[in-house]
Amino acid sequence: MRVQIVEVGPRDGLQNESAIVPAAAKIVLIHKLMAAGLKRIEASSFVNPKWIPQLADADEVLQGINRSQEVTLSALVPNVRGLERARQCGLNEIALFMSASETHNQKNINKRIEDTYPILREVAQEALALGMKVRGYVSTVFGCPYEGNVPLDNSRRVTESLLEMGVYEISLGDTIGVATPKQVHEVFGELVKDVTNERLAAHFHDTRGTGLANVAAALEEGIRIFDSSIGGLGGCPYAPGAAGNISTEDLVYMLHGMDYETGIDLEKLIEAGAYIGQQLGKELPSKVLRASLASKPAG
Amino acid sequence: MRVQIVEVGPRDGLQNESAIVPAAAKIVLIHKLMAAGLKRIEASSFVNPKWIPQLADADEVLQGINRSQEVTLSALVPNVRGLERARQCGLNEIALFMSASETHNQKNINKRIEDTYPILREVAQEALALGMKVRGYVSTVFGCPYEGNVPLDNSRRVTESLLEMGVYEISLGDTIGVATPKQVHEVFGELVKDVTNERLAAHFHDTRGTGLANVAAALEEGIRIFDSSIGGLGGCPYAPGAAGNISTEDLVYMLHGMDYETGIDLEKLIEAGAYIGQQLGKELPSKVLRASLASKPAG
Repeated sequence: MRVQIVEVGPRDGLQNESAIVPAAAKIVLIHKLMAAGLKRIEASSFVNPKWIPQLADADEVLQGINRSQEVTLSALVPNVRGLERARQCGLNEIALFMSASETHNQKNINKRIEDTYPILREVAQEALALGMKVRGYVSTVFGCPYEGNVPLDNSRRVTESLLEMGVYEISLGDTIGVATPKQVHEVFGELVKDVTNERLAAHFHDTRGTGLANVAAALEEGIRIFDSSIGGLGGCPYAPGAAGNISTEDLVYMLHGMDYETGIDLEKLIEAGAYIGQQLGKELPSKVLRASLASKPAG
Repeated sequence: MRVQIVEVGPRDGLQNESAIVPAAAKIVLIHKLMAAGLKRIEASSFVNPKWIPQLADADEVLQGINRSQEVTLSALVPNVRGLERARQCGLNEIALFMSASETHNQKNINKRIEDTYPILREVAQEALALGMKVRGYVSTVFGCPYEGNVPLDNSRRVTESLLEMGVYEISLGDTIGVATPKQVHEVFGELVKDVTNERLAAHFHDTRGTGLANVAAALEEGIRIFDSSIGGLGGCPYAPGAAGNISTEDLVYMLHGMDYETGIDLEKLIEAGAYIGQQLGKELPSKVLRASLASKPAG
C-alpha cells in the first residue's frame, strides 16, 4: 500500500521558526528532501512578506532549486499577485488556504468566509488556465483557537466549495493540534463518503502529542496522503514553545513499520532533519531524529 | 469506558534521569500525582542501589508518603531481599520484571530466562503469602536492543510463566520504543485471546514518536490498562537523549478526547509535571505540558 507524503517543513515549519534561515540553506534543505525521495514539497509561500518575514525570500528559494520532473514543488498563494509570482518561479502547483471557522478565517485572512470564496475562485481559475494544479487547505477543521468546536458541516461546505473551484485535493488541518483519534474517525469517516479518499489529505499538528495516533486513525478511514514537516520543524502560533506539524521522520518510521510504502529513504531524511536543526541551532522535536542523533557520535 | 493508568514516572521515568532528585522532592511529586487522581503509582525500585543510584532512597521515599486507601503504591522487586524492604515499607503491591529476549534478560538481570523463573517464583510466593498483589513486567516484547525482532511465542511463554506464579497483571513493554500500531495489533490481538484483556497492560516508550498511536491500537484490541510517566520523564538507556515512557499528560489528554474515563484531573496532572520539570531544571518531553506552559506566563 502506498502513502503520499507532502513535505511542508520549508513552508509551514519554517514560517513558525523565529530565527531567519538564509535562502541558501533553505535551498540545501529542499535538495536534501528531494534526495531522500520526497516527491511533493511545499517550498515557500507568496503571502505578503510583512506577515511572514521568514518566507520573504520565496522567489529566490524557488529559483535556486534544481528542478526534477519527479518532484512537484508548490507554494501557498493568497491572491492573484501571489499567483503571478508563482508563475514567474515556474511552479506547476499552488496551494490555496482558508478556514472552516469564521473567526479564524477573519483573523488569518482578514475576510469573512463568504468573501474569501470569490478571491480564491479567481486565483484557481487563472492557475488552472496556466496549466497549474491547485491544492486547498482547510484550517481549524478539528478546533478553532477562538471558537473552540467547529461543526463538521462547516468543513464540508468549505471543502465542497474549494472542489467546485477546481481544487484537486483538500488538506484538512488540525491547525492548533487538538484532535484525538475519535474525532479523526468522525471527520474523515464522514468526508470520505462525500469526497472520496483520493481527494483528501490529513494535516496534523502534534501540539498535544496525538499527531501520529491521528495519522493511524486517518489511515483506518482510508486516507493515504499526509502533510508533515522535516524534524517536526515549526511551532504553534497560538502557543509559542509548543509543537507544530508532525515530524516527517516519525511519520515515515511509523508508516514503514506498518508496511506502507512511501518511496522515502529514512536515513537520508534524518540527514535533512539534522541539517536544518544545525542551521537553526536547536534540537528539533522529531523523536526519530533525536534517537538517531543520540545513538551516533556528534560531528 | 474506564481506562486505568499506572503512573511509572517516579520509577521508570526517574531511573533514566541523570540528575539526582532529593527524596523530599520525590515525595512531593507522588503527593501531587495522588492529588491529580492517579490510583496506581509505581513509586520506586528495590534493585541494588549500585545499579540505579537515583532510586537508592526507595525506603525513605515510600515511608515519607501520606498513604491513602484509594491509591496503590508499588515498587520493583528483583529478589527476596527487595521483597523484605517492600514489606518493611508497608507496600501492598510489588512488581517483578524480566525480558522476552534472552540477551536482554542476561544483560539486564544477569541470568538466563530459565534461571530467572525460580527466583521470581520464590518472590511471588512470599509476596502472596504476605497478602501482597504481584504485577509482572515483560520487557522487549516489541523488539530487543541486542536481538532485534522478538518472536511472539517468547512473550507468550514468559507471560504465561509469570501468570502461573500468581502474578495478577502483566505489563508488556516496548522497552526501546520501536513498535508501530501494526505490531501492537498483532501482539495484543494474539495475547488477549490467551490471557484476556483484564490481565494485560501496555507499556510504551515514545522513543520514535509512535507511543500514543500504539496506545490507540492497543485500545482497539481491548487493552484498558496503560503505563505512563508524568512529563514523559526519563529517557532511553540505549540511546541517551532519546525519549522514554509515553507522557501521562498526553495519554490522559488523548483518552479524555476519546471519551474514556480515567478519574484524572488533567490540570492537576500538569501541575505535577511542571513541578518535576522545575526540580530537574529542564523542559520535559510531554507536549501537553509544553503547550500548557507555553500558553501561561512563567512563574
